[in-house]
Amino acid sequence: MREVAVVGVGMHKWGELWETSIRDMFVMAARNAMNDAGVDNIDSMYIGCMSGGLFAAQEHLASMLADYLGVLPAAAARVETACASAGLAVRMGWMEVASGISDIVLVGGVEKMTDITGDEATFALSTAADTEYEGYSGVTFPGLYAMMANAHMAKYGTTLEQLSQVSVKNHANGALNPEAQYPFPVSLETVMNSTKVAEPLRLLHCSPITDGAAAVILCPVELAKTKFKDHPLVVITGSGHATDTIALHSRADFTTIKAAEVAAKKAYAMAGVGPADIDFAEVHDCFTIAEIMVTEAIGFFEPGQGGPACERGETARDGSKPINTSGGLKSKGHPVGATGAAQIIEITRQLRGEAGKRQLKNPRRGLAQNMGGSGGSSLVHILEVR
Amino acid sequence: MREVAVVGVGMHKWGELWETSIRDMFVMAARNAMNDAGVDNIDSMYIGCMSGGLFAAQEHLASMLADYLGVLPAAAARVETACASAGLAVRMGWMEVASGISDIVLVGGVEKMTDITGDEATFALSTAADTEYEGYSGVTFPGLYAMMANAHMAKYGTTLEQLSQVSVKNHANGALNPEAQYPFPVSLETVMNSTKVAEPLRLLHCSPITDGAAAVILCPVELAKTKFKDHPLVVITGSGHATDTIALHSRADFTTIKAAEVAAKKAYAMAGVGPADIDFAEVHDCFTIAEIMVTEAIGFFEPGQGGPACERGETARDGSKPINTSGGLKSKGHPVGATGAAQIIEITRQLRGEAGKRQLKNPRRGLAQNMGGSGGSSLVHILEVR
Repeated sequence: MREVAVVGVGMHKWGELWETSIRDMFVMAARNAMNDAGVDNIDSMYIGCMSGGLFAAQEHLASMLADYLGVLPAAAARVETACASAGLAVRMGWMEVASGISDIVLVGGVEKMTDITGDEATFALSTAADTEYEGYSGVTFPGLYAMMANAHMAKYGTTLEQLSQVSVKNHANGALNPEAQYPFPVSLETVMNSTKVAEPLRLLHCSPITDGAAAVILCPVELAKTKFKDHPLVVITGSGHATDTIALHSRADFTTIKAAEVAAKKAYAMAGVGPADIDFAEVHDCFTIAEIMVTEAIGFFEPGQGGPACERGETARDGSKPINTSGGLKSKGHPVGATGAAQIIEITRQLRGEAGKRQLKNPRRGLAQNMGGSGGSSLVHILEVR
Repeated sequence: MREVAVVGVGMHKWGELWETSIRDMFVMAARNAMNDAGVDNIDSMYIGCMSGGLFAAQEHLASMLADYLGVLPAAAARVETACASAGLAVRMGWMEVASGISDIVLVGGVEKMTDITGDEATFALSTAADTEYEGYSGVTFPGLYAMMANAHMAKYGTTLEQLSQVSVKNHANGALNPEAQYPFPVSLETVMNSTKVAEPLRLLHCSPITDGAAAVILCPVELAKTKFKDHPLVVITGSGHATDTIALHSRADFTTIKAAEVAAKKAYAMAGVGPADIDFAEVHDCFTIAEIMVTEAIGFFEPGQGGPACERGETARDGSKPINTSGGLKSKGHPVGATGAAQIIEITRQLRGEAGKRQLKNPRRGLAQNMGGSGGSSLVHILEVR
């Protein structure tokens, strides 16, 4: 198998984009990524999208977006693992380039979430859980993660302040990201006092509803070395993908996210590294409790230590393990099908030294963890700069 | 890259399965395929599904079906190119095995279409076309294929009798397939006189709404030779994937299906064969005009000769190019996300000599063509028995 490089990244300002269609958003992100790489055509593409049908009454995005991007008759596929769909797209593109089937592959994702009402969006998102056994019982995603938060607080003593500190940190990072949906800081007091959504989660513990797209260009490392020399060489050295039960009630333990743990172990093994070798990470903070649980699942902190670590500042930009320098899902926004690709974009920009005001000092290796549902799917990728 | 074998196939009796859930259908098909191969676990799986959201209010099938099949924490992905979703799943599995990433991969598809009303299903299917420019103008799929039929009739003199003969032939085949939704013959007169749906298409020129699943087990040829010796060795020698405009009105020509032509050329080139070397095929007869146009696009007949060839019996089981020996989408049924895998099942059964009363005489090489929308996506695979 060939080693795979990231040679182009592109997104756009995320938000409530009522005047921009799903096709326009994706084409903007894809053209930005192609321009960043300096390519005018691609061999194939993979598009993550959670529910084109329920959010935008549009399936068959593969054909539509290949058409509007002007790359017909290139092979194009839409892939889906709920909110981990774009992480899956990255893995599929990595596989296609690694195998030697194609040289230039575009991977990304898109979700147009604000063309329907909030109730309809809540229903659409609930189909990432077990509809018959969870959704039809009235459980929505804030409820599922609230149950996980309660279990984690009961078992480990995780506090509301710690849940809130994740939000404060991610907004502090997002305030420096011009493409973020909510690029402003929030105080601990504001988060703690925000409207209660599902005990113990407040509004500012939850990621928002977002319109957005993100895209990444992959090619073999050997080709990157000769043809794409405008940026430092960023290489995908590890890829892991794992599943867990779709329904939360089927799991032995609510306080860990096993799919993230298994996917991370696979990615570490492929890259030949461990958690101590990772300089920074983008993780799936759909709710702030998720960030805490994931930083434990991927081995950055012992079980129960994710909250205290954030509170001590270890996951801040100047800490030992910076997490979500992009602002995370919380501040940057969470167009569910695009999030996994945006994580790869942030890792790449940091490794290249192109992260602007939020740039870390000389990071060498980053990890991206993308999650579907309440942890039913997880994708983990490790990237290095050479 | 490694050569890839088909070592297990499984589906179930398709139809209006009001007492069987989407998870139960998929698990039935998957267990049948695993039993056929003689495996009790898999490394990963790809599930084709066009619209879990609109048909069944259930996305994130990857997690749910890995869970119910009992293969957690195996990597699982849902993939979608409208009605070509399971053809895409086959290609993804082929890629994963060929690349050396995994050894035993399950590929398949599922669609649960009858839990919603006919109007709702018509709307859900319409999202495989361009919703903003076709769907919201009131065009549904019978209308799109009717326009293609009218153009083909005007340009080439294709007749209503020829459109009808495709249905007669496919029902004659499906009558011998115990898993078909409508396993009975229909007369030319019955087809010609059936209710008009969209001029010139009658009801019996259209494939039905179906609940169903299908699954296939793939592994490297070298492993198949040593571990899976219960059946003749069937090998995937060619895989092609191509796109075209999602909207019919954007195309230069309505009378050909270019994505099928391009995908077939890629598959032929990989397999090192041409149309003359293919003994039989399963093609995407969502409407009978589609079968005629596809048999031309894949090079079996000259443009305009698809209809006359069917009328002369060349595509019957005892003809020179048998097409849709399974009964095709018309008689076997068309659970849109599963169809592409069922095509691979029929090719495999024919190549193994396990096709029962519809068995062809000693076929050596078959082709499967799966289509999304009005031809916006196409997947083509070539299989050989050794």
